Amino acid sequence: MASLKLYNYPRSGNCYKVRLFLSMLGLDYGRIDIDLLKGESLTDEFKRINPRGQVPVLVDRDLVIWDSMAILVYLARRYGASNWLPTDPLGEARVMQWLAVSENELLYGLARARAALIFGKPFDLELCQQDGRAGLSVLELRLAEGDWLAAAEVSIADIACYPYVALAAEGEVPLQPYPAVCAWLGRVEALPDWVPFATG
Amino acid sequence: MASLKLYNYPRSGNCYKVRLFLSMLGLDYGRIDIDLLKGESLTDEFKRINPRGQVPVLVDRDLVIWDSMAILVYLARRYGASNWLPTDPLGEARVMQWLAVSENELLYGLARARAALIFGKPFDLELCQQDGRAGLSVLELRLAEGDWLAAAEVSIADIACYPYVALAAEGEVPLQPYPAVCAWLGRVEALPDWVPFATG
Repeated sequence: MASLKLYNYPRSGNCYKVRLFLSMLGLDYGRIDIDLLKGESLTDEFKRINPRGQVPVLVDRDLVIWDSMAILVYLARRYGASNWLPTDPLGEARVMQWLAVSENELLYGLARARAALIFGKPFDLELCQQDGRAGLSVLELRLAEGDWLAAAEVSIADIACYPYVALAAEGEVPLQPYPAVCAWLGRVEALPDWVPFATG
Repeated sequence: MASLKLYNYPRSGNCYKVRLFLSMLGLDYGRIDIDLLKGESLTDEFKRINPRGQVPVLVDRDLVIWDSMAILVYLARRYGASNWLPTDPLGEARVMQWLAVSENELLYGLARARAALIFGKPFDLELCQQDGRAGLSVLELRLAEGDWLAAAEVSIADIACYPYVALAAEGEVPLQPYPAVCAWLGRVEALPDWVPFATG
């Protein structure tokens, strides 16, 4: 029996970050789908699991961890090799820089542009697209110099940034102006045990 | 001579996170003020330091670290005792959960409401205030149960969440409905080497 359980919404890029990393770490887990569009994350019952009323939430035996960034950090430390999240101060800080970009320009830019268009959320599409492009420009500069975001090897920085970049077209932010970003998407997709968004 | 240098904007809550933590760690540093309102962070020269065109940026000898969250993690690991950022997987994940809240509900809620009102930024004030209140409700639930956000001791989770909560009134989000949050603000302000926003 899997000791790991994931509360998941299939169309959430934040949930995909966790599904992708669980797959790459070779970890079995049970999946409980929560329909965000039906408000299933906002019930009193679900809020006892996560007071923020969001997915993903990971349960590891009796431990409950909410938030995709926190879950990636937990899984890397608990089950991963050290490339995923280095333990030295500078190495860890380099990963954190890109986790911050994933939580800011990518989430409030690319993901919200997508949410405005495909879920009808009341976000300012143009402002979101502009924030998203600002994030992509920063990624492009970095990826023109190196294969991976935070270091010479893949890390959870790449896992955290990948989903909403890969889904940028759904927010009508074209990736053609960012060739180094496009090449990096290909490198992520060539990693062992990568799984696609729709079925992963 | 201080080996640490901080690119800073005095009215930025994100910069205040770093100023506060540097003070609490007892670290000397040189300060270079950048006027965001005059676009000084968006020059080519500054973007060579931080491609995102933002402050804070910390320079430690020849290392450059941008992003407030990454800087807090770096300082905790490099100069701080382990309470600031535990090294065990669960302890670290608990800190990350609240760093995520600071980067999401607090930054895109409380900080953007403030930026709309005091800097005239084109954000949807009502939506920002609503996101900010959602973040405060989650903090309130947690702080009704414990003195500090991530653990029994203070951590960088508290340092990251404190500034924009303390500045919530500037975004016209009253704190009266959140008594446990108000009590926690008082606990942060009673910590050794706490410094106020305006002069810290």
